[in-house]
Amino acid sequence: MSLKDLTTVMLPAIEGELQRQVARLDEPRTRTFHEMLTYHMGWTGEGAGLEAQGKRIRPLLVLLSCAACNADWKSALPAAAAIELVHNFSLVHDDIQDNSGKRRGRDTVWVKWGMPQGINAGDALFVLSNQAMLDLAPTHPAETVVKAAKILHDTCLDLTRGQYLDMFYEQRADLTIEDYWPMVSGKTAALLGASCALGSLLSEVDEATQEAYRDFGHYLGLAFQVQDDLLGTWGDSARMGKSAESDLVSGKKSLPMVYGLGKNGPFARRWAEGPVRPEEVAGLAEQLAAEGARLYTQETADQMTALALHSLRMADPQGEAGEALFELANKLLNREA
Amino acid sequence: MSLKDLTTVMLPAIEGELQRQVARLDEPRTRTFHEMLTYHMGWTGEGAGLEAQGKRIRPLLVLLSCAACNADWKSALPAAAAIELVHNFSLVHDDIQDNSGKRRGRDTVWVKWGMPQGINAGDALFVLSNQAMLDLAPTHPAETVVKAAKILHDTCLDLTRGQYLDMFYEQRADLTIEDYWPMVSGKTAALLGASCALGSLLSEVDEATQEAYRDFGHYLGLAFQVQDDLLGTWGDSARMGKSAESDLVSGKKSLPMVYGLGKNGPFARRWAEGPVRPEEVAGLAEQLAAEGARLYTQETADQMTALALHSLRMADPQGEAGEALFELANKLLNREA
Repeated sequence: MSLKDLTTVMLPAIEGELQRQVARLDEPRTRTFHEMLTYHMGWTGEGAGLEAQGKRIRPLLVLLSCAACNADWKSALPAAAAIELVHNFSLVHDDIQDNSGKRRGRDTVWVKWGMPQGINAGDALFVLSNQAMLDLAPTHPAETVVKAAKILHDTCLDLTRGQYLDMFYEQRADLTIEDYWPMVSGKTAALLGASCALGSLLSEVDEATQEAYRDFGHYLGLAFQVQDDLLGTWGDSARMGKSAESDLVSGKKSLPMVYGLGKNGPFARRWAEGPVRPEEVAGLAEQLAAEGARLYTQETADQMTALALHSLRMADPQGEAGEALFELANKLLNREA
Repeated sequence: MSLKDLTTVMLPAIEGELQRQVARLDEPRTRTFHEMLTYHMGWTGEGAGLEAQGKRIRPLLVLLSCAACNADWKSALPAAAAIELVHNFSLVHDDIQDNSGKRRGRDTVWVKWGMPQGINAGDALFVLSNQAMLDLAPTHPAETVVKAAKILHDTCLDLTRGQYLDMFYEQRADLTIEDYWPMVSGKTAALLGASCALGSLLSEVDEATQEAYRDFGHYLGLAFQVQDDLLGTWGDSARMGKSAESDLVSGKKSLPMVYGLGKNGPFARRWAEGPVRPEEVAGLAEQLAAEGARLYTQETADQMTALALHSLRMADPQGEAGEALFELANKLLNREA
C-alpha cells in the first residue's frame, strides 16, 4: 500500500477515534459545549467537511510510525487522537491570543461563542487529549501508558514555552536567529517529534529507535517551518502578486526576518520603522535576498530536511508504512506553495 | 497532632513541592513566563505572601486523606501539587473569563501581562499539573499512577463542564434548582472530591473506602458552596451593611437565587427587571427569605454537611490525620462570614 492507500484506511479511523473522544461532552446539558468542539474539529456547522478538518498530519505520523515498527497501528489510535486534540486545543487558544476571526475559512470558535467560552472550549480539548491518552490502558502496559502521557505533557510544556516566546517577541525589535529556534521548536517541532516518538513507543521498539523517530518528527517540523518561512517571503503567492499575504506584511517572526534583523542593514532599518505595506513587499523581499537571507533560509531548510531524512533512515522504518513515511516527508518538504 | 500541628508540617511541604513543579519553567529564556506563575501562586511580586497564596485546602485534603489511610503523606505530595495547580489554572482562566481585575487583593495575571499571555499562563499551570501527577511514578506502581491521572483528567472535564454552565447561565432567566447542582458539582465539588479520592488511592486502601473519601470531598464541596451562598445573601457582610458585596448585586447564580426564580413570585419579577442596586439588597434578601429561600438553603447546607460527615465516618479515617479531617470539615462548614 502506498501513502495514499494507507491514509485512505487511517484517516477515517482517526476521525472515528476523535469523535469518540469528543463525545464525552455529548450530553443534553452540555449540547452547545459539545457543538463548539465538533464545530472546531470541522464535523458540524457551516463549512463542515474535509477542508475544515485539516490534514491530520500529526495523528497520521503516530499511526505510520507505529506501523513502521511492525506494530498494529489500531492500538495507537488513542495516542493519535490525543496528539490531534492537543494541536486543536492550541489552535483554539491561538486564535483568541492572535485575535484571529477566521480559521480554515470559517469563523473561529471565540467569534461564534464569545471569548470566555472560547477559552473554555480550548481547555476542554486539552482535557480530552489527556483522557484520550489514558485510553491506551486496556491495550498497553501501565508503564507504557505513563511514558506516553509523559511525552504528551512534556510536549505541551514546550508548546506553552513556544507560545510565550512568540507573544513575548512581539515587543522586541532585536530578535536574532538564536531567538528563532526555541520558538519554532516549541510551536511546531515538539508536537511532530512527539507524534513519531509515541508511535514507536507503543510498538515497544528499543529506546534508540524511539529517539530516532522523535528526531525525525522534530527535524521534519523544523524543516517544514523553515520551508514555510521561505515560501512566505519568496513563494508563489508573493510572486503571483498576493503581496498582502506575505509574511513581511503580517510581521511573522520568520527565519528570513530574524536573519535580516541580525544583518543590521537596509532591511533592518526599514523594519524598525513599522508595519510593511503590500506595495513594499516585492522590493523588501529583494532587499532581504540581497542581504543573503534567501540563500541562508534555503540552506537551512535543506539542512533540516537532510537531518529529518537521516533520522528516518536511522529509525529504519519497515514495510509499506516505512515507505509511506519517506513519501510523506518528501511531500511535506517539497511543496512549492 | 491536631489539625493545626499537621498543617504546620504539611503546608511548607506543599509549597516546596509546588515550587519544584513550577520551576520547570525557571530558565533564562522564559524568565518572565516563570514569573507570571510564581506571581499568581503568591510567591513573588507585590503583595506576595501567605495572604496571596490562598489556603491550599485541596492539597491539604490530599495529604490528610492519605495519612488517614495510614500511608506516608509525603509520597502523595506530587498529587497534592497537581490538584492545587489545576485549581490555580482554573482561577487564572476564570479571571479572564469574568473580566476580573483583582484576585486576593492583587492584580490578576492577565491585567499585569495582557490577556494572551494570561491564557498561556493558565495553560502552563494545567500542563504542570499533569506533569506533577506523573512524578508519582518513582514511588507508586504504574497502574496507580494511571488511576491517579484518570481521576485528575475526569475532574478537569467536570471543571470545564461547570465553567461552561456557569457562563451559559448568564444568558438564561429561567434557571431552576436542577440547573444549580451540575454547575456547582463541576465548579466546586469535583476538585474537592478528587483531592480526597487521590489521597486514599495512593494509600492503596480498598475501592469502597476510596469511594467514601471521594464522597466526603464531594459533599464537603457542595456543603461549602451552599453555605457560601447562604452567607452571600444573609451573612455578616450583608448584615453589616456591605450591601455592594451581596450575591444579589453581583448576580451570582446562587442556590437562594435559583430557588427564588423557581417560586415565580415578587423576587423573580424583580430579578427579571435587571441588576439589583445595593440599596435594594436588604429588602430583596428579606423578600427572598419570606418566599422560603433562606430556610431551604439552610436545610440544604445541613443536608450536605450531614452527607459529608456521614461519608467521612464511612471512610473511617485513622489516627491524628483522621481527627484532623473531621476538624477541617467542621471548620470549613461552621463559618459565620
